[in-house]
Amino acid sequence: MTTKPLTRDILAGRDAGDPLARFGERFELPEGVIYLDGNSLGALPRAAGERLQTLVADEWGHGLIRSWNLHDWIGLPQRAGDKIARLIGAGPGEVVVADSTSVNLFKLLASALALRPGRSIIVTEADNFPTDGYIIEGLLGVMGRPLDCIRYWDLAEAQDVITAIDDDTAVVALTHVNYKSGLIHDMEAITNAAHEAGALMLWDLCHSAGAMPVELNACGVDFAVGCGYKYLNGGPGAPAFLYVAEHLQNDITPPLSGWMGHSAPFAFDRDYSPASGITRNLCGTPPVLSMVCLDAALDVMLEADMDELRRKSLALSDAFIDLVEQECADLGFESLAPPSAQRGSQVSLTHQHAYPVMQALIAHRVIGDFRTPNIMRFGFAPLYIRHVDIWDAVAILKEIMQTRAWDKPKYHKRGKVT
Amino acid sequence: MTTKPLTRDILAGRDAGDPLARFGERFELPEGVIYLDGNSLGALPRAAGERLQTLVADEWGHGLIRSWNLHDWIGLPQRAGDKIARLIGAGPGEVVVADSTSVNLFKLLASALALRPGRSIIVTEADNFPTDGYIIEGLLGVMGRPLDCIRYWDLAEAQDVITAIDDDTAVVALTHVNYKSGLIHDMEAITNAAHEAGALMLWDLCHSAGAMPVELNACGVDFAVGCGYKYLNGGPGAPAFLYVAEHLQNDITPPLSGWMGHSAPFAFDRDYSPASGITRNLCGTPPVLSMVCLDAALDVMLEADMDELRRKSLALSDAFIDLVEQECADLGFESLAPPSAQRGSQVSLTHQHAYPVMQALIAHRVIGDFRTPNIMRFGFAPLYIRHVDIWDAVAILKEIMQTRAWDKPKYHKRGKVT
Repeated sequence: MTTKPLTRDILAGRDAGDPLARFGERFELPEGVIYLDGNSLGALPRAAGERLQTLVADEWGHGLIRSWNLHDWIGLPQRAGDKIARLIGAGPGEVVVADSTSVNLFKLLASALALRPGRSIIVTEADNFPTDGYIIEGLLGVMGRPLDCIRYWDLAEAQDVITAIDDDTAVVALTHVNYKSGLIHDMEAITNAAHEAGALMLWDLCHSAGAMPVELNACGVDFAVGCGYKYLNGGPGAPAFLYVAEHLQNDITPPLSGWMGHSAPFAFDRDYSPASGITRNLCGTPPVLSMVCLDAALDVMLEADMDELRRKSLALSDAFIDLVEQECADLGFESLAPPSAQRGSQVSLTHQHAYPVMQALIAHRVIGDFRTPNIMRFGFAPLYIRHVDIWDAVAILKEIMQTRAWDKPKYHKRGKVT
Repeated sequence: MTTKPLTRDILAGRDAGDPLARFGERFELPEGVIYLDGNSLGALPRAAGERLQTLVADEWGHGLIRSWNLHDWIGLPQRAGDKIARLIGAGPGEVVVADSTSVNLFKLLASALALRPGRSIIVTEADNFPTDGYIIEGLLGVMGRPLDCIRYWDLAEAQDVITAIDDDTAVVALTHVNYKSGLIHDMEAITNAAHEAGALMLWDLCHSAGAMPVELNACGVDFAVGCGYKYLNGGPGAPAFLYVAEHLQNDITPPLSGWMGHSAPFAFDRDYSPASGITRNLCGTPPVLSMVCLDAALDVMLEADMDELRRKSLALSDAFIDLVEQECADLGFESLAPPSAQRGSQVSLTHQHAYPVMQALIAHRVIGDFRTPNIMRFGFAPLYIRHVDIWDAVAILKEIMQTRAWDKPKYHKRGKVT
């Protein structure tokens, strides 16, 4: 099959017809930079910057302590949670914003194990984002259980996770979209498999919330966690979120039973009594600055249609894959990208010199990131990436490879975060 | 003994000679408001507001993901921690900023219990800030231990905490300054008593860090936690901190073993291996916005001499106590204030109508807070409270009482946060 080569004009034409193009001006991006790392840290929504200024000057500076009531800071975790719920197929009162993804994983895994007292095994993916596994290790340590309660499912050895689930499985904890390869797991099929074995299902949505439609309720998911600073654009280290299906909420005994999850935090009772519903999953005082910023970013995202967003996401990654093949053949790249139906909003390429090539790209103002050992990762946030950006990024990549511009000592030097 | 009555002029004279007076202009406070609630939410340091604008526009907006290295966001928890260390008598590398006080309590209590495997009891104060007790309950729940592993020391029944400590005590967990009464516990004596019994000592510094000199190292304290949003002025819900004495740091097995506490977070290893030193107590990605704000606020506080600060704190609370006695005798107030040597930077009064009186005071622009059941709490943050503010606050209180201005239905209405 001969396909017509892609040109910059063709991509510019797609931008002209892009229903999401209007979102571009809602984000502050540095002139001349092509930002393909929104899957690591989302760009700055102008509205979030403005909201933060109001928060600092008016609500904190002027309102001071009164703002907990006056500006309903106290209701922020639930209010922002309800906004996220709309993006991930959950109902009002099923999501709350709190803490970090890691801390929320700990809470929900402990809660899930307590709901399955006769079972000891947590199934997770060997290639999961590492913190997910680390948190399971820590939890087992506190509980005094052995580390072999973790069963690592290795996708490379068995395509079907069902092989790893049995009637000793308490909970299956997977990340919906793999952080390296971008592979989407089948949420419905795996959730069903967990339930058929009597286990509970927990999904980590770090690389899917805000990147594609997610249907937690429709898939019957029990628990989920996710990140506020990637596709949700909540700012560096933005608070994370957690989801508990409504029917399970009042059966949970929170392990991190802080005062914000108490049924009456300002009664200052000596003994803990959990709030009803999702609120019992709160722990300490919420970081209002960071949470307000996320809340404002969510308002921007909620204006977009998630199906439209998914279509553009795939159009961008398809174009990237095609252009790398068309322009950079024989330059040593291999794509890890799954077929579009199973592809998240990112594409990873492997290359023998992935690290210095990525550093050179960044120096030439195309920002992606490196993942060990040899992966160059490119994320496509459909709200602020244009189709022509893909052309320009690949053109710069090609230039860097052809001129060996990457092969300078400064690009081999490792930073703390790489 | 006849003492000369205090006048506004006397207090104005103290302001004229106040070496900390220059800090007033470093904070943004609303015109005409007397803010006596810095023990609940510190005022806005101008430098923090400015730092936040730079962070958002330049570091996030322009630097994007590169700022983790370029602006060393990744080193923030330790950098801000080292600043707090100087305020609480700890060494460099002994403090890290992370999560909330509640979450940090959970981490350190679990770590302490693991270091005392043969012992089961946690001693805490019955009148401790509630979240401290709630967190112990939650931890025991995860560990599968009974709630009677908590031993509540009741100060009203036994002045000496030593009566509650025995050789089954694993850890003594107390708050240095009581949130209601403002009573300071004797850190050195209690720490020694815990150690003599073979137990570990954990102090909650929420109401002492930034309010008075604290000497963790000199008192041989094992663990401490504290809050960033009270006297440290880090902003609403600012991240908290934790301290681990250097000699214990590498013996800790973190229960919340997230990737930021890993020895090589960006190696993305499957298995957890803790970083050496204080860093292993980190968990998820830090909330950079909130943390940078706290970091800038700390720079302001570090310019002040802590002994100077303590002297002014006591001068302010002494004046408040004296003036309430002088101006508001027979108006139904009783002071809970301990003698100055054991008094934190706050004074609590009880009153039969404490709630509506406090609401009326707030409406008349004197901001303190109410604590159940009948406490009016006034905090004195020496960096931005003037001596004449004390006069003016008491004058307004007197006026409200004499005119019964508090006895209106609107002041009886309860908010979510009270």
